[in-house]
Amino acid sequence: MMNKDQEKRILLSHGSGGKMMHDLIAGLFREKFSNEMLDRLSDSAILSGVSTKERELCFTTDSYVVNPIFFLGGDIGKLAVCGTINDLAVEGAIPLYLSCGMIIEEGLEYKTLEKIVNSMARIAQETGVKIVTGDLKVVEKNKADKIFINTAGIGLRKKGLHLGKEYITIGDKILINGTLGDHGIAVLTARGIFQLETDIRSDCAALTPLIQDILNLSDQVKFMRDPTRGGLATTLNEIVSGGSSGIEIHEQDLPIKEETKAACELLGFDPLFLANEGKAVIIADARDADKILERMKKHPLGKDSRMIGEVVPDPQGKVVMRTGIGSHRIIDMLVGEQLPRIC
Amino acid sequence: MMNKDQEKRILLSHGSGGKMMHDLIAGLFREKFSNEMLDRLSDSAILSGVSTKERELCFTTDSYVVNPIFFLGGDIGKLAVCGTINDLAVEGAIPLYLSCGMIIEEGLEYKTLEKIVNSMARIAQETGVKIVTGDLKVVEKNKADKIFINTAGIGLRKKGLHLGKEYITIGDKILINGTLGDHGIAVLTARGIFQLETDIRSDCAALTPLIQDILNLSDQVKFMRDPTRGGLATTLNEIVSGGSSGIEIHEQDLPIKEETKAACELLGFDPLFLANEGKAVIIADARDADKILERMKKHPLGKDSRMIGEVVPDPQGKVVMRTGIGSHRIIDMLVGEQLPRIC
Repeated sequence: MMNKDQEKRILLSHGSGGKMMHDLIAGLFREKFSNEMLDRLSDSAILSGVSTKERELCFTTDSYVVNPIFFLGGDIGKLAVCGTINDLAVEGAIPLYLSCGMIIEEGLEYKTLEKIVNSMARIAQETGVKIVTGDLKVVEKNKADKIFINTAGIGLRKKGLHLGKEYITIGDKILINGTLGDHGIAVLTARGIFQLETDIRSDCAALTPLIQDILNLSDQVKFMRDPTRGGLATTLNEIVSGGSSGIEIHEQDLPIKEETKAACELLGFDPLFLANEGKAVIIADARDADKILERMKKHPLGKDSRMIGEVVPDPQGKVVMRTGIGSHRIIDMLVGEQLPRIC
Repeated sequence: MMNKDQEKRILLSHGSGGKMMHDLIAGLFREKFSNEMLDRLSDSAILSGVSTKERELCFTTDSYVVNPIFFLGGDIGKLAVCGTINDLAVEGAIPLYLSCGMIIEEGLEYKTLEKIVNSMARIAQETGVKIVTGDLKVVEKNKADKIFINTAGIGLRKKGLHLGKEYITIGDKILINGTLGDHGIAVLTARGIFQLETDIRSDCAALTPLIQDILNLSDQVKFMRDPTRGGLATTLNEIVSGGSSGIEIHEQDLPIKEETKAACELLGFDPLFLANEGKAVIIADARDADKILERMKKHPLGKDSRMIGEVVPDPQGKVVMRTGIGSHRIIDMLVGEQLPRIC
């Protein structure tokens, strides 16, 4: 599963969301912790033991270590609330309750902490989510980096939603609710390295209203996932990996800001691998795809929505991009590390 | 709420479990995140919105930053599973599901991670708890310390349990299921400083079987809490703080190992403030206290159980200790920091 060198140490790239992380999770965590809920390896676990006839309970967790902790369009607190909300939302759940575990580096300014807590409280309030339990640890200087936040979340979804990779079939359309890579570029800009200057705001947002709108409109949604670490390319690869169909995306349909393209050219990044924090990849049956797209475009969180591709028979288990000049190239999962600590 | 100096920076003592942490939580988190579930400030939140007629859902979280990550009797993984189980167990809940969020410092040996994951898997297996969702982040060297683990937990308890500070009345007895401070001394010994050499093992254990035994035996249990960070003294102060009664404990009844006493004398620590990771303070009506104690002593997790004191009318809101020679001294909440990163 891991080669000799990787076997020795955990590397930054094991946390990148890409191939090395997937291998580590499959080879260690999934094997040791194995149970039917974890094995789905979805964004949220569906808790069979506490679900009722009408509704299922979903449970998810994420730690946030973004650097820097403030950036255009958000901060680590907003990210920690929205990110966990989105992991529930893409499973079709309404997020209800969050926990909040903070690890703080000794010396953090109280005002900074207050700003982060205010930001969490505001977004929780706006989204109707309650932070109901928490924990605080403080570690010595240089044993953490300012602040890390873990949020775990609980949401409810109605039973009978047919969401999951297993429902995807050839011909299904792939939609996304806006421009790619905004979060990645915003964080990179905030780092103040590479002389990068952009006005791109992180797309950090809670997607529940948009997703619920779509689910209320159509019962032909097959699968949803938020393309965060590892970007769109990694998410699409996760979807087809090991399966009997492939995904084709169309380069000219991908919504990417000109500024993002320019920054990526300058820095040698690929926008397909940049993190998003307010985007969902939506796979829907072709018969409802146009209707869903139209609705998405009317939603404040989906103005720049696009249909970007479809599920195809070949190549099996792979993602290909049809470029502007009609050629095809394989889009792999992120290997190694593009941007550490992006979320 | 905080004085001028504290207002500027977060200090290690804000994470100690003592008075500064309580003030920070009351002054910031509780104020900003306020809702009826959080405001109980209990070890677990009772989730009213997803409970049914027969059962209530409990939800809790804790991050673990213990240093070193291995010690006699446990490791950070065992601690992360047991600690969150215990926060649910003391609310009378049966722990069912855990999330696991890891933040790893680049360079951690794979074998070390594997050992920790094995330890988590083993204790989850033994206790029948399932780890159903997880997250992994890796940060650069010196931006974390080997590994931090957050676990959030979900448990179920039957409705109609009358557990809570509000049920405590004068005359209630206070019990504990074994010796104090074992975890604190074990971690301190593992640090290899102070030339401290002891054979004391951390008491790290999942308390569900013992607690369920007690709850099945008696409906006169009023309140339970696990005295972790800040020790017994801090937990007892939390119980009476702001209330109309006090607690008296009897020095000669406190179960403390001779080796712990000796280590504390050497280092200037007070065993009442040392962390425990397999102990529960149990407050029960006097009429059932003896029966409960007897049962506790028969349980493998309660061999050294003792009745250590009672709820008294005076001094209101305070904890006093009657010493061997009959004098009284006030036992305050931990102020400042005794042992950073003990859990």
